[in-house]
Amino acid sequence: MKKFVLIPDSFKGTMGSAEICEIMSGAILSEIPDASIRQIPVADGGEGSVDAFLQALGGEKVNVRVKDPFLEDMETYYGLIDGGGAAVVEMAACAGLPLVEGRADPSLTTTYGAGQLILDAARNGAKKIIVGLGGSSTNDGGCGAATAAGVRFYDAEGGLFIPAGGTLSKIARIETSGLDKSLQGAEIITMCDIDNPLHGKEGAAYIFGPQKGADIAMVEMLDAGLVNLGKQIRQSLGKDIANMPGAGAAGGMGAGMAAFFGSSLKMGIEVVLDTVRFDELIAGADMILTGEGKIDGQSLRGKVVIGVGRRARVHGVPVVAIVGDIDKGAGGAYAEGVAGIFSINMLAEDFSRAKLHAREDLAFTTANLIKFIKALN
Amino acid sequence: MKKFVLIPDSFKGTMGSAEICEIMSGAILSEIPDASIRQIPVADGGEGSVDAFLQALGGEKVNVRVKDPFLEDMETYYGLIDGGGAAVVEMAACAGLPLVEGRADPSLTTTYGAGQLILDAARNGAKKIIVGLGGSSTNDGGCGAATAAGVRFYDAEGGLFIPAGGTLSKIARIETSGLDKSLQGAEIITMCDIDNPLHGKEGAAYIFGPQKGADIAMVEMLDAGLVNLGKQIRQSLGKDIANMPGAGAAGGMGAGMAAFFGSSLKMGIEVVLDTVRFDELIAGADMILTGEGKIDGQSLRGKVVIGVGRRARVHGVPVVAIVGDIDKGAGGAYAEGVAGIFSINMLAEDFSRAKLHAREDLAFTTANLIKFIKALN
Repeated sequence: MKKFVLIPDSFKGTMGSAEICEIMSGAILSEIPDASIRQIPVADGGEGSVDAFLQALGGEKVNVRVKDPFLEDMETYYGLIDGGGAAVVEMAACAGLPLVEGRADPSLTTTYGAGQLILDAARNGAKKIIVGLGGSSTNDGGCGAATAAGVRFYDAEGGLFIPAGGTLSKIARIETSGLDKSLQGAEIITMCDIDNPLHGKEGAAYIFGPQKGADIAMVEMLDAGLVNLGKQIRQSLGKDIANMPGAGAAGGMGAGMAAFFGSSLKMGIEVVLDTVRFDELIAGADMILTGEGKIDGQSLRGKVVIGVGRRARVHGVPVVAIVGDIDKGAGGAYAEGVAGIFSINMLAEDFSRAKLHAREDLAFTTANLIKFIKALN
Repeated sequence: MKKFVLIPDSFKGTMGSAEICEIMSGAILSEIPDASIRQIPVADGGEGSVDAFLQALGGEKVNVRVKDPFLEDMETYYGLIDGGGAAVVEMAACAGLPLVEGRADPSLTTTYGAGQLILDAARNGAKKIIVGLGGSSTNDGGCGAATAAGVRFYDAEGGLFIPAGGTLSKIARIETSGLDKSLQGAEIITMCDIDNPLHGKEGAAYIFGPQKGADIAMVEMLDAGLVNLGKQIRQSLGKDIANMPGAGAAGGMGAGMAAFFGSSLKMGIEVVLDTVRFDELIAGADMILTGEGKIDGQSLRGKVVIGVGRRARVHGVPVVAIVGDIDKGAGGAYAEGVAGIFSINMLAEDFSRAKLHAREDLAFTTANLIKFIKALN
C-alpha cells in the first residue's frame, strides 16, 4: 500500500478540498513515510476553482485587467494548464458576490469580465476552456460575457447595448456573427453543479436572486427579463435552452454559455475527472481517498464520491470515502464502487461543536484507516 | 476472512454487550454468510453477568431459594459453566438495588443471599466460583454473605449477630473457623471494576451510599461502621484490606470477599478472558471485534478494549474496536494491540439524539468495515 490518490470535495462549512488533501496527505505520510500521494482537490466551479486545478495539475496563473461587475477595471486571473493547451476561468473572479459587497444589485451587474477572461484564454492559445460558474453577483444570463466575446444585443429601436439583469427585457434581436474568431475551434466546457432552469419559480431569479440583493419586486422583474432572453435566444439563434438543467446557474449564465459559446454544461466532478485524466492517473494506485461533507441518498446524484467510485470501479482500485455525516441512503454508494465509508464524527455532539475540531478528526480518521490497513497486511 | 470473535463491553446508556454481539454478528453474516462467529459478551460483575457468561460459554442456570436484602425468602439463580466445574454468582441477583425499590436503606440490607449462592455453588461441586459485584443495595461489607458461609460475628457482649450497614460498628470479634468446608479448595474470584477503598471520602459509603438511599448522616454512620469492620478484620484475621483497590465495591463486599472468602479481586475483563480461555479461543481467528461506549485515555487503565488488545497482540490476531465516542488519548490503544478504532457516530448530533439510532449505526459501522475488508482482499 504505497500509491494513493486523494480526490475529496470540500466539507461545506468546515474545510476546503485543498486543505482536506493536505490533512489526509499528512496523516498518510505519518503512517507510510514513503507513500506516493497525488492530491486532486475537487473544484465545483465556484471561487477557488482555478487554484484547485492548478494544485491538481500544475500550470500558471495569467493576470489580466478586465471589467468588474460594474464595468470598472480590475485585476484578476485565470489559469493555464496542460502546458497552455487548456485554461480554467472562474466567473466569480470578476463577477463574484464578494466584489459587490455593500452595493449588490443584480439588475445592474454584468458578466462582461468573464467574457474577457474567456477571450484572453482563447487568444493565448487555449483549445479547451473550462468555465466555472458559481458565487455570482449577476443575473444577466451571460449577456455581458457574450458581448465581450463579440455577440451583439439590440433593443426594439435597433440600438446596441450591453444587457444587464434589469435590461434583459429590452433585447429585441441578437446577432452572433461577430463572435471573436479566436473562439472558433476552442472547446468550452462549463462547470455547473446545480440543475435549475433559466426562469420560473425554480429559475435563477427566484431561487438565487434574493441572496444577490434582489427584493421581491426585483426578482419578478429579473425573472421577466430571463423569460425574454430565453425567447430571443429561441428566435434569433434557434436554440431552446430555457429548461436545460443548469440554465439558471450563475444568474442564467448557464443558458448564455450554452447559447452564445456553444458550451456543454457539466458537473464539476466530471470536468475534474476528465481534465486530470483520472483513468490514466489511477493506473497502479493502491487506494483512492475521496470524501464530501455529507453522504446520503442525494450523493448518488452525480456528486463527488459517486463520480469517483464509478470511474475507479472500472479499474479495480478501492475507493474509500471519508466524510462528515453519513445519512440515510448512503449505503447506495457501495454499489457505485465505494469500498468503505468512514465518518470523521468521533463524539456524539452537534455540528456547532464538532466543526471546531474537524481538522483533527479528519487527521485521526485517515491515520486510523491507514493503521488498520497496515495491520491487515 | 471467516473466523470472528466478538467480545464487546456494553455501551452504557444504549446497548448491553449481549445485544451488541447480536447486532455485530448479524452485520457480519449479511456480508459473509458462512462466517464463523464466536460471541463473548463481556460481563462487568453487575446485573446480567450470569447471563453473559452463559451466553459466552453455555452452561445451566441453577434456581435457588435464598434470602433477599431484607432476609426474606426469594427465588433467584446462579450459573454453572464448564460442565459444572465452575459457577458464576452475581450478588445483584439477591442483593441488588432493583430488589429494594421503594424501601432502599443501606443500613438494613444484607448480602446474606449472596453467601448462600456461593455456598450452593460450592456444594454443587464448583471448584471455581466467580462472584460478580455491582449494582448492590447494601453496605454490609459482605458480612451477610460471610455469615451465610459460616463466619461468626460477635458484639462486645459476646452476642452473635448478622451485621448490616447500620450495625457494623458493633462488631467486636470475628470467628472464621466455622467457614463451610465445601468452600475449602474452591477458588473464589471476585469481579470488580472499581478501585475504591473500603472507607473514607473515596470509600463505599461516601461514594456509593447516596445512590442506595443514604442521607449525609447515614453516610457518616455507614462509614464509621466500615472503619470498624476494617479494624476488626485486621485484629481478628490479621488482614489489612481497607485500602485494597476494590475493597469498597458493592458496599464494602470487595473487602469481605477478600477477608472472609480469601478471594482475589479482578477486573471483569480479565476474569472473562481467563474464564473463556481467550488465548486458546482466538487461535486461528481472523479478526476480533471489541468495543466500549467510549474510548479515551482512561480506557488504557484495564478496560475491555485494551484488555482484549493486549492478549490478542501476542497471537497476532487483529483487534478492531467499534465504539461510541472516540475521545482524547484514544490513540494510545494502538500501542496496546488495537489495529483500528471506529466510532458508530455517523451524524454530528448530540447523544440524546444519537442514542435513538445507535443500533442501526452499530450495524452500519460493522457492515461497512466488513465490506471494506472484503474490497481490500
